[in-house]
Order: sequence, then structure tokens, then C-alpha cells
Amino acid sequence: MAEEIKIGLLGLGNVGTGVYKILLENGREIFHREGLELKVEKILVKNVGRKRAVNIEQGILTDSIDDITDNPEISIVAEFMGGVDPAREYILKALKNKKTVVTANKEVMAKHWHELERVAGENGVGLYYEASVAGGIPVINCVRESLQANKIDKIMGIINGTTNYILTKMSDDGRAFNDVLADAQRLGYAEPDPTADIEAYDAMYKLSILSSIAFHTRVHIDNVYREGITGITVDDINYGKELGYAIRLLAIAKKRGKAIETRVHPTFIPLNHPLAAVKDSFNAVFINGDAVGDLMLYGRGAGDMPTGSAIVSDIIAACRNRGRHRYSTFYNESVASEDIVFDNNWETEFFVRLTVEDRPGVLARIAGIFGKYGVSIASVIQKGHNMKEVPLIFVTHKAKELSLKNAVADIALGADVVRVENVIRVESGT
Amino acid sequence: MAEEIKIGLLGLGNVGTGVYKILLENGREIFHREGLELKVEKILVKNVGRKRAVNIEQGILTDSIDDITDNPEISIVAEFMGGVDPAREYILKALKNKKTVVTANKEVMAKHWHELERVAGENGVGLYYEASVAGGIPVINCVRESLQANKIDKIMGIINGTTNYILTKMSDDGRAFNDVLADAQRLGYAEPDPTADIEAYDAMYKLSILSSIAFHTRVHIDNVYREGITGITVDDINYGKELGYAIRLLAIAKKRGKAIETRVHPTFIPLNHPLAAVKDSFNAVFINGDAVGDLMLYGRGAGDMPTGSAIVSDIIAACRNRGRHRYSTFYNESVASEDIVFDNNWETEFFVRLTVEDRPGVLARIAGIFGKYGVSIASVIQKGHNMKEVPLIFVTHKAKELSLKNAVADIALGADVVRVENVIRVESGT
Repeated sequence: MAEEIKIGLLGLGNVGTGVYKILLENGREIFHREGLELKVEKILVKNVGRKRAVNIEQGILTDSIDDITDNPEISIVAEFMGGVDPAREYILKALKNKKTVVTANKEVMAKHWHELERVAGENGVGLYYEASVAGGIPVINCVRESLQANKIDKIMGIINGTTNYILTKMSDDGRAFNDVLADAQRLGYAEPDPTADIEAYDAMYKLSILSSIAFHTRVHIDNVYREGITGITVDDINYGKELGYAIRLLAIAKKRGKAIETRVHPTFIPLNHPLAAVKDSFNAVFINGDAVGDLMLYGRGAGDMPTGSAIVSDIIAACRNRGRHRYSTFYNESVASEDIVFDNNWETEFFVRLTVEDRPGVLARIAGIFGKYGVSIASVIQKGHNMKEVPLIFVTHKAKELSLKNAVADIALGADVVRVENVIRVESGT
Repeated sequence: MAEEIKIGLLGLGNVGTGVYKILLENGREIFHREGLELKVEKILVKNVGRKRAVNIEQGILTDSIDDITDNPEISIVAEFMGGVDPAREYILKALKNKKTVVTANKEVMAKHWHELERVAGENGVGLYYEASVAGGIPVINCVRESLQANKIDKIMGIINGTTNYILTKMSDDGRAFNDVLADAQRLGYAEPDPTADIEAYDAMYKLSILSSIAFHTRVHIDNVYREGITGITVDDINYGKELGYAIRLLAIAKKRGKAIETRVHPTFIPLNHPLAAVKDSFNAVFINGDAVGDLMLYGRGAGDMPTGSAIVSDIIAACRNRGRHRYSTFYNESVASEDIVFDNNWETEFFVRLTVEDRPGVLARIAGIFGKYGVSIASVIQKGHNMKEVPLIFVTHKAKELSLKNAVADIALGADVVRVENVIRVESGT
């Protein structure tokens, strides 16, 4: 009564190898429990002759996508090539040939979700993407299958392991960004070209996907504010600690009524916040639902085996759901469309670090400017005295993004302000 | 094209009211997204005339189970009465009348799972129990639907909010067990009869369910070692802190090959362990899978709305799965049965607190006894001097449960040992 499911893999890098290993090691148990014999029929690679980390039977590797998309035996295609080209084209081809697609590709999902899901629906096959957000942490499934009774109004996540590794190392060891990045590259935690991670493109794609399913509203990447971690210094981190904060690259999504804000940026959070305990390359997603309250999922956001775990789990789900695949419904793309507003002028607290001339009246003058723009101050640190230049740090109460920016621009004009060193948003979680 | 699903609720206490409120508040969105109109048709209560926290339409309340189980309109019955009698009988009656059952009842599940699931299977209906473990945290769904690619070898959970509240208060405020318990009862965190919580029956039921699905092996409550928190003193907690540990009532399940150990007892864990950050009435479950690595879920383990969230989520899942409900397969109850061994002689570290007479040679003599039983010592604290009686605390390296017990029994015989104050297991997580 067991059934053989033939699978095509697009890619045999890190994740592809993980999937292959899991099927090899746990295939017998999956067979026993699920009645499914998951068989890798073909694997698309660039170079068929290259030596691999796993032993692959002869005839399985191919460099032609047609061997997979045109193979009538194959019913599921799993993709982990990354990037849009040629992943989008290959996924579309597979869907059109009635193959369910399981993908780890956040970029193609974030950019082409609508098209991919429409084609999947037209062909009666499924599109699964648990692995595209937070690797082994089953956050997509949790939101889609376990929190349907809730209105979700807030998500705060550490969903990029590379930047979390860098920020926690900078914080624990007091070493500069470039130093730690070089180490991370050497250890394989960061890519040779680290842009997608450190400039937060990766986290932006993931937040676009996660907030779309949480709010049942298509949140395009254009609606996600993005700011990387390259501007963060050890000084910022140390002053933050003094004020009781830890720094993280947070992906934040909030919904109030019809207003949605989505943003990825370095953020100070209280040292006793559960997300402050998430260190190194771990990921975590904090969710607030109206019924469930606060919920947090924590685990490995990347790596061959954790991401492979999500892929194989999706393959099994796809088999269970055959003939009943479900598609996302987004309020802002349905007929009964709600008039969602994407709000760029959110309210949050801010950490503002200045270097000013050490002379009487500077603090009063600057505090006055904040006041003029309606920004109220929660705490101030003024360090040193009788020096030419001294650091002056403010943490504000909740203020509008634009008011704060205007206030800081105005402050920067002052002759006694040497430099605006940094402005970092703060989420106290209240 | 939307479909009306008529539901019967068994109980209108805390959880029942939560379910009713969620359907009232979020019913419209569930309808929009899922195409399901979830309608509460009947609610079983003891006293139809009593005033309720929510406004219920006339004719919905009933004191006769037959109005629900014999009502052909009702397709789903949700039960949250707790206890075995009459819940078991009512659930069986509902299943036999082809109604899918959603339950929050850990005791009836832990004790009668096999019977309930067999009857569900015979009648082609479903049995759902997400709410029975860890309230709003979707740990059952996570293990069943997201970690199927994994061999799970370890679970460590804080799955009883009452005891976690008591232990964290004792720890933070230095107040005695009875004091904090009385407070907890006043605040509604503990029942008037607190036995099920403080003697760890509640956590035992939950661990029986959780480990059964994680290991695909029926773990009966008889196979779960159970020890409550009534013997824990502020002295134990303070000495633990000094050694770098926090105390929690942990539910622990481990599998090595065919050997399974399952135990619920007060446990010292390192202060930097993610579970040490779980305070007050929060719950958390830490899972290790061979592919996914470490994963933790954190949230509200009880309460009307969180538990209601799990119930309503199960109701929606039951609707989606109609005609395709899945049942658990347990290796030790299937034809191809594996010869599982339930291991009571596990290995762990131990904290042993003694009061001894303050005279030369005591430490050496006791250390010698530990050695005789093959128990090796990791650290010792000896406090005070020139007093009649002094505290002497040992933390051992990993040792077998029986060896440790025998060693302590032997130590207790010594004329210089005034009292064995406490023996508490330690999980360093390595």
C-alpha cells in the first residue's frame, strides 16, 4: 500500500545535499509512518562530472532542466538554486507540467509569488515554501496551520543568521564590524559577497513572505523598509548596553486596523527581551496573536540539514494534500479588497548618538529642538567633560519616524554639533 | 460556496468561553479565508440557568449530552471538561455518531488514547488534541506536520504553568513554597486543590502525549517517572544559583536507539539555557531532531484565549481534512513492532545537598562513598565552619540513577551525616 513518489531536485549545493542525506537516513522511517517512498529521480547540477559530498547513483545527475520538468514520472520538484534567474523559469515550467513545487527560494517567492501561485492553482498542483523563511523553524506552517484562529498584529524576528552572528560577536568581543565579517566569511557563515545579508535584502525577502501570510495581505518588497548593519559600531553597541539594550537586525511587521508597517533595520531591544537571548547564527520569530498572545519560535535558520528538514517536511505535506493543495488569499488582491495602507511614518523609540562641542547650553539647545518637533526624551547620557568634543546620547519616547528625522536634520545644522554619529530605532516591546 | 459547520461544545468554563469568544470575534475572518462558517449549535453545561461571562443565544445551552451527540446537524464536538469521567464516555459517544472530536483533555488522551483513536478510525472521523499539551503553543502540530523528516531524540519542556510560576517566584523573591502557592491560588494561577499541578500529574499526562508522537511509540503514563515540586526549598534554589543553575519542573524525554526515558521532576538547568529564560506561567518546549537540530517553542501554556486558539485551529484543520483524517502509528503497537525498552536507570548529573557534622574527614569519607558507587564529583560547596552542623553540597558528573540512589542511601547511614536535605537532578544539556 506504500506509494513511490519520484522527486526532482534543482541544485545539489548545501541544501540539496541536506535533502539527499535526510531522505537517505530517514527514508525508511518516513516510509513506515507515512506510507511514502520518497525517491530522488533526477538532480539538476551545472557540472555532472564534479565530485560530490554524497554518493549519488549513476544516471541521477543531469545538466538539463528538461530531464526533470518533462519527466512524467516526477511529481514533485524541489528547488534551492536561489535567485530569480533561472529559478523562476524552471519553477513555472515544472508547475505547468503539473508538478508540485517545494522551494527554499525567498527571493523568487518575494518577487513572483502571485505569478507562481496562480500557475500552481491553474494546474491543480501545490507550491510550498516553508524553507524560504527561517530555515528549519516551521514558522510558515505555524502561521498557516496553527494560528488561523488569530488576528496576528505583530511579528518581530531575527531571520538572518549571518547578521545575528556578526552583531552578537561585535557585542560580546567588542570587535569592529569589518573584523567580524572577515571571520564570518572565513568560517562560512557569510558569503564571499555578503551584500544580501549585511544590507538586509535577505531579511527583507523573508519579511515580505512572512508578513503576507500573517496579515493575509500581499506585502511587496517595495513596502518593506530596509536598512543593513554596516553602519553599526562597537561604540553604538556599548552605549546601548549601558542603557539596557541589545542590538539585533530585526524584521518587524505590525498591523493596526488597516495600517501595516514592515521594516528591517538594526534595532535596540531590552536585554531581558526573549529575542535578546538569541545569539550567534540562531534565528527566532516572535508573534503576537489576539487569542494566543505572545508566541516565539527559536531554532536554526540556515544550514544544510535544518533547511533540508523544512524541504522534506513540505514534500511529505504535498503528498498528503494531493488534490487539495491550498492557495493564499490576500485581502488586497481579492475581489472584496480591503483598503490597506502601508505606513512609512511609524512610531517607535529612537537612540540618537551625537558628538558635540563641550560647551554650556548644548544639551538645552538640542533638547529644545527635539521638543519643537514633538519628540519627547526618555533618557540622556552625556560623557566626559573639559574635552573639545564629547558624546551625547538620547533615547526618545515613542515618536513618529518623520518627526525624528526632521528633528535630527535640524539638530545637525547647529554649529556646536560635530557629527550625528548614528540613529538606531528601539523596540521596547510595549 | 461557504459551508456552515455546526459545532457542539462540551463545557463552558474558562476554555469553552475562550472558544466562544474567538468564534464571535474572528469568525468573519475565518469565513473569509477558509470558506467556513463555524457555528456553535449547542453547549453542554451543568446548569442551564446560570449567568455566563458571555452572552449566549437562547436554546444553545443544554444539560443533556444527547442534544449534542444525537444531533445529526453537528459534525464537530469540542471537549474541555477535563478528567476521565464522563469525558471519555461522551467523546466515545460522539465518535460513534460520526462526529469529529477536538479535545483539550490531556488526562483522557493520556489514559485512553488507543481506544479513542481506534473508535475515531472505525467511524472515519478525526480526533484532534493540540490543546491538550502546552495550551496555545502549537507543539503537537509542529511535531506531526513540520518535523516528520526528523528522528527526534530529545524533548525538554516546561509544560505546567502553575509550577513554573511558583518556582520562578520562589527563586526571584526568596519566598517559601507554601507562601507562593497560597498567592498563586488567590490569583487563580493554581487550583483550590493544586495536587495535579504541584505533584506533576498534569505534566506527566502531557509528556506521555508529547513523547508518544515525537518517538512514534506509545509512552503510557506508567512509563513516565513523576516527581512534584513540594520538596523544593529556597535553600536548594539559592545553592543552585551559586552553582550557576536555575530550577524548573522539566518534562524530559530522550530516545537512544530502542531505549526511551521519560521523566518529570524538578531539575537544575544552566542559567544561560534558553529554558531558564522561561518565567512565570509561560511554557516552552525544547526539541532536538537529527535534521533540524535544536528548536524551541515558547508561549502561553494555558488560559481561555490561548487554549481556545488551539481548539479553533484544530476545528479548522478538522474541516480541511474531512475524509482524510490521519491516525497515529506507534511502533510498539503496530504489527512490525519494535522492541522498545523503557529505561528507568537513566544517566544524569545530580545535585546532592546534605547537612553534616562539622568535623574533619567528613568530606573525604562521603567523597569516598560516591567513588565506591562509580559516581564522580564535579563540584563541592562546603559552607560555614566551627558550627555544629554545616551544609555540604555536591554536584556529580553524569551518573546512573540507581548508582546515585544507592550511594546516597549509604552516605545517609554515616553518623556524621545529620540529614540528606535534597537530591535534585541536573540537565546541563550536553
